Amino acid sequence: MIGYAFMGKAHSNAWRNVASYFDVPAFERCVLVGRDRDGVAEAAAKYGWAESATDWREVIARDDIQIVDICTPGFMHAEIAIAALAAGKHVLVEKPLANTLAEAEAMAEAARAAQEEGVQSMIGFNYRRVPALALARELIVEGRLGAVRHVRAAYLQDWLVDPDVPMTWRLNKDTAGSGALGDIASHAIDQVLFLLSEPVTEVSGRLHTFTRQRPGAAGLEEVTVDDAAWVMLTLASGAIASVEVSRVATGQKNSLKLEIYGDKGALLFDLEDLNELGFLDATLPVREQGFRRILVSEPEHPYLEAWWPQGHVIGWEHTFTHEIRDFLVAVGTGTQPSPSFEDGLSVQRILAAVEESAAAKGSLIQLTPSARTTQTTTEGA
Amino acid sequence: MIGYAFMGKAHSNAWRNVASYFDVPAFERCVLVGRDRDGVAEAAAKYGWAESATDWREVIARDDIQIVDICTPGFMHAEIAIAALAAGKHVLVEKPLANTLAEAEAMAEAARAAQEEGVQSMIGFNYRRVPALALARELIVEGRLGAVRHVRAAYLQDWLVDPDVPMTWRLNKDTAGSGALGDIASHAIDQVLFLLSEPVTEVSGRLHTFTRQRPGAAGLEEVTVDDAAWVMLTLASGAIASVEVSRVATGQKNSLKLEIYGDKGALLFDLEDLNELGFLDATLPVREQGFRRILVSEPEHPYLEAWWPQGHVIGWEHTFTHEIRDFLVAVGTGTQPSPSFEDGLSVQRILAAVEESAAAKGSLIQLTPSARTTQTTTEGA
Amino acid sequence: MIGYAFMGKAHSNAWRNVASYFDVPAFERCVLVGRDRDGVAEAAAKYGWAESATDWREVIARDDIQIVDICTPGFMHAEIAIAALAAGKHVLVEKPLANTLAEAEAMAEAARAAQEEGVQSMIGFNYRRVPALALARELIVEGRLGAVRHVRAAYLQDWLVDPDVPMTWRLNKDTAGSGALGDIASHAIDQVLFLLSEPVTEVSGRLHTFTRQRPGAAGLEEVTVDDAAWVMLTLASGAIASVEVSRVATGQKNSLKLEIYGDKGALLFDLEDLNELGFLDATLPVREQGFRRILVSEPEHPYLEAWWPQGHVIGWEHTFTHEIRDFLVAVGTGTQPSPSFEDGLSVQRILAAVEESAAAKGSLIQLTPSARTTQTTTEGA
Amino acid sequence: MIGYAFMGKAHSNAWRNVASYFDVPAFERCVLVGRDRDGVAEAAAKYGWAESATDWREVIARDDIQIVDICTPGFMHAEIAIAALAAGKHVLVEKPLANTLAEAEAMAEAARAAQEEGVQSMIGFNYRRVPALALARELIVEGRLGAVRHVRAAYLQDWLVDPDVPMTWRLNKDTAGSGALGDIASHAIDQVLFLLSEPVTEVSGRLHTFTRQRPGAAGLEEVTVDDAAWVMLTLASGAIASVEVSRVATGQKNSLKLEIYGDKGALLFDLEDLNELGFLDATLPVREQGFRRILVSEPEHPYLEAWWPQGHVIGWEHTFTHEIRDFLVAVGTGTQPSPSFEDGLSVQRILAAVEESAAAKGSLIQLTPSARTTQTTTEGA
Repeated sequence: MIGYAFMGKAHSNAWRNVASYFDVPAFERCVLVGRDRDGVAEAAAKYGWAESATDWREVIARDDIQIVDICTPGFMHAEIAIAALAAGKHVLVEKPLANTLAEAEAMAEAARAAQEEGVQSMIGFNYRRVPALALARELIVEGRLGAVRHVRAAYLQDWLVDPDVPMTWRLNKDTAGSGALGDIASHAIDQVLFLLSEPVTEVSGRLHTFTRQRPGAAGLEEVTVDDAAWVMLTLASGAIASVEVSRVATGQKNSLKLEIYGDKGALLFDLEDLNELGFLDATLPVREQGFRRILVSEPEHPYLEAWWPQGHVIGWEHTFTHEIRDFLVAVGTGTQPSPSFEDGLSVQRILAAVEESAAAKGSLIQLTPSARTTQTTTEGA
Repeated sequence: MIGYAFMGKAHSNAWRNVASYFDVPAFERCVLVGRDRDGVAEAAAKYGWAESATDWREVIARDDIQIVDICTPGFMHAEIAIAALAAGKHVLVEKPLANTLAEAEAMAEAARAAQEEGVQSMIGFNYRRVPALALARELIVEGRLGAVRHVRAAYLQDWLVDPDVPMTWRLNKDTAGSGALGDIASHAIDQVLFLLSEPVTEVSGRLHTFTRQRPGAAGLEEVTVDDAAWVMLTLASGAIASVEVSRVATGQKNSLKLEIYGDKGALLFDLEDLNELGFLDATLPVREQGFRRILVSEPEHPYLEAWWPQGHVIGWEHTFTHEIRDFLVAVGTGTQPSPSFEDGLSVQRILAAVEESAAAKGSLIQLTPSARTTQTTTEGA
Repeated sequence: MIGYAFMGKAHSNAWRNVASYFDVPAFERCVLVGRDRDGVAEAAAKYGWAESATDWREVIARDDIQIVDICTPGFMHAEIAIAALAAGKHVLVEKPLANTLAEAEAMAEAARAAQEEGVQSMIGFNYRRVPALALARELIVEGRLGAVRHVRAAYLQDWLVDPDVPMTWRLNKDTAGSGALGDIASHAIDQVLFLLSEPVTEVSGRLHTFTRQRPGAAGLEEVTVDDAAWVMLTLASGAIASVEVSRVATGQKNSLKLEIYGDKGALLFDLEDLNELGFLDATLPVREQGFRRILVSEPEHPYLEAWWPQGHVIGWEHTFTHEIRDFLVAVGTGTQPSPSFEDGLSVQRILAAVEESAAAKGSLIQLTPSARTTQTTTEGA
Repeated sequence: MIGYAFMGKAHSNAWRNVASYFDVPAFERCVLVGRDRDGVAEAAAKYGWAESATDWREVIARDDIQIVDICTPGFMHAEIAIAALAAGKHVLVEKPLANTLAEAEAMAEAARAAQEEGVQSMIGFNYRRVPALALARELIVEGRLGAVRHVRAAYLQDWLVDPDVPMTWRLNKDTAGSGALGDIASHAIDQVLFLLSEPVTEVSGRLHTFTRQRPGAAGLEEVTVDDAAWVMLTLASGAIASVEVSRVATGQKNSLKLEIYGDKGALLFDLEDLNELGFLDATLPVREQGFRRILVSEPEHPYLEAWWPQGHVIGWEHTFTHEIRDFLVAVGTGTQPSPSFEDGLSVQRILAAVEESAAAKGSLIQLTPSARTTQTTTEGA
């Protein structure tokens, strides 16, 4: 595994625990890689990796390594992932796929080539493994919502409300690519693709930065990414999705909200209550219709049989354990894990179209058919 | 109508509006009666009564009066109601039926006698006319909950949290009979009887006064009624209901909460969200079970067809409009309105048993069969 | 009052009850006007009007009429309102102000002229009189939210989910002007103006019709208005508001949702729970921050002192009672009621800009300064 | 660690992960003990224990073992715990302390003796380590609720709703001691003690078994424990707590609900939403009072700094990780962990009094002063 900050901590947790709950192919947690020798050594000891190292190229070259999990910042994804795939290693990479569309396309191309050699790759949109959202997709696939007409998605956080929060690499376009758009709208857009299983044909968007300067090492520095973004998507079926994301939504801590309206039913979800799914079945008699709060904690629910008795809720990091479970199972059976790099590329193309639209006063951008790859099917839990 | 304070205001609203929404027999709002000549005259003008008067006996004697609505404090109920029935007037009386069991028994006896003469009477447990609770009863009667095993009822208010709230007649046993027990536990207990349609066989209870002295006209005065009460009821089927009421439940304003657990389903209700009913259908597949929030605002729901389009919610006072609608329809058709004085007496007997149990360290009190009158059936809306 | 359908019923309720709760100048409910002689006579009797009539011109000419309340469909507003103002009658007109911008401008002009003669006018955006929203505005005006950065508004209904719901005048552009946009986005946009007290400078929008044909008298007919609309507004301060409205949001009955994010606090509201306001005070210690559910039912809350004790909730139609209370008080004191026709015109201009943007692929439309009238201040309750 | 079923799985998770999140003294996961040789060996491999064994006496005798974690059924607790303490091992034992009061007293005595030798012991009431409940206690200790007047506690589950759920050792008094009372009322009662920090002086209770026979290996067998229990507690300050627990509360999966009402504030909690605490501050102006939903996920909240960024919620099993963190820290510093066996004994005494009261028609039982040990203070996180 390469990288040991926030995502490295979360992925380590998953690798440390997955085999205690799920039947997965045997594996060892060999090496944790990072730039700072002492830091990575300490992290390896704390998180349960056998060794640590500072040069990812050396590690990728090792014969005893079969899987590379990339948790670095986005601008390093392409180089490492392409090299690892070329070396015949199965690759899991954190989202977003890359900071630029060109990098993302190169990665998807490398993944296709590797796949022909039996080398698998996957992008880590972990919220596909929230049991409530996996259940949501099951219900939609089974037709319980009928034809989906519109989706309201939002991802709201508030860690930038205070204008005195200092400048970081995440607020600089050179290092971060974009702001709320790439960081959290990417999750919301991936959910639209995941849940509706159809490509996007049109995109429009708007980006805004409420606080344009923040204190940095050398006085006030320019914030060059968006604090908030508004996106409209048309899907191939004619369904329409709105996506609104913000890092200044005071009081909203990590609230990925989804509302999906079909002609036979509707679904509600909020990541801050991730063990719950709201479901309304519009085929029941009107007198008894209403949104149900399904506490997604039964053995009948995706992934839950592995955990605790009903009503004993799970947390945010469990989504990574599920992700790595599915990744390992796919690698073990030699099948393509989902979501693929191609799926990650689809999201990148939409993000790029949002930026294009935002620069053009919000006008609708058509996505060319080649840019509208249909999503692959997730392996069920 | 006799009395023009809180309940008089609420009943006036109902009489003023009922014919604008429901098909009811024609009636006129003739006389409002109160002790203070100017006060009652002003109230009559404000609330829309043609005349006012100060002597209820004179009014009851009038030939142009057919209905008497009694909104006075409880200690006056028996005298007025018995006189009015004897005069051949149909009577609606606010809850609780009376302050003492003896009075309540006399009233029920008078009501039975009057009924034989075609003179109707009704007690105003208005929460039976909350549409969500009327729907709850429909679902239970239809068997949607299966066998009900236990009920959790509570009625929580907080207007006595502050020990400096002054002494009033409501806090004096001589005038009020009891405290939270008679005032709000009576509502909760009536709901248990209404929803389960079966008599209570055993009662136990506890009463407590957290603030024993309050400032009065002449310094600190003794509070001689309960602030809070805890009641356990066994029903004829073996179902068990707990009832907890309080006037010092900080932050709870007017929260009558009901939870009803059957072997095929369950219901939840809170008066602070009175347009909603929670319903869980345990016969659905486990994967999709959950409490539904039914917004009780559709024409298919009890009483709602008369009001506004779906989703346009109603308020607390509408329950009185429904009550008077049902009363007028019953009077018009010459049938017994529900709940009857007998139903009111059943509640009084339970309240008396609670006091008896509380005085005996909480021991279970058996109700004799004659005290366990089965509830009459409500006329549907 | 002219018109006796849905809005006529709601306004009648307000006129019938307002004086029982609020101190208002004395008035009589003289005449109800409608086209169908029998229908209007029956409605007048049911709703408590002294007379009925079929010719609004005759009624407006009567000397004993001082106030005209216009509850007709939008296409009749301009003619009646302008005539009534010219006749020196105070006018209350239902929203939206008119079906076309030209009519709306003429009405605002007439209102300005009448105002100089001491003749008052008001547009009925009744949701300004939801106590929770009046409280929301108080908190914002007092600075409790700090600088508002963004607003998420939605108005979601589901009465058109079923494609077999038949064609009506509301779905025809000629009679209705627009669909969800004019009917419900107008309410949401008015709330943005009301709550933020600042003009809109930029608008973009998208309109969509999911079901393009519906069964009519003569087979399938074309639906020529929108089922759903998405609007982005930039306000003078730089704040951004998104507005999403739909008549096919399955399971959402009448859900006007508002989320307002400032740098010191945030507010949440949902019309389906109209007695509640969510408030987060971001100036409190982080450890104890959270959205509060304020049950807006205390005497300290706008309009509530007139009604019931705390926790005894009110319903949707009470907003009209408050509206007419404020209208009567303003008329009585000879001051401009709020919102004015000018305020209604501001909303119309935004709606027109949305249509313009939607026709231009969603591009941003600048509003000229003259189109950005700042909202007048509401008279407090 | 002894035992590898449900609790063994949960404790293993905690031991496996605690050092990755918290600074704790170094330890090794040496031996997992169970009766079935193959089963325990498999569990040890799966859950990350170095060895497995079948004889707990041999393991306790080993010099390389310093800590014994007892996850066996309750009837084995006393023997193992007393032996382990005598052998100088620090002991963590799952709740309830024992199946009988005599055993619990012997264990508390052994713990006191061991403590004098520097050998620590702790009982695993893990819900004391729910961050929201740890925060609740902080607020109460700081006086934010003022004087607590009453508590409403409930623990509702529904796994016995179906009468065809088969007989198990948990439904037999000989093996389980009691039913819902010992299993889940113990948690609720411990919370009352933990949150209010004062002893119980009076107890009354009622027990009920709704389904008296269930299918067993040899046909229908008698269920000899309670399905549901109702408990009233008087605390030393005069506060009153009601506790209601059920295994047949249809639709309630694992819902430990707490409502705590003081004269300056109130708290709400539900274990199914364990990342949230409801708090009402009654010292704020009435106009802005309301229950806050505090999402307990900030670094300022107990235990949370170790985990994820704000809004990234944790799950049920994290409570064990916190418990073992606190246990290890106490062992490391040579201080008494909390809750102690004495605290566990206090709960047992209350449970015994409930059974005594239930057998006496629910009469109040006085607890003797020696039975009312004040709770020790929890070490803060």
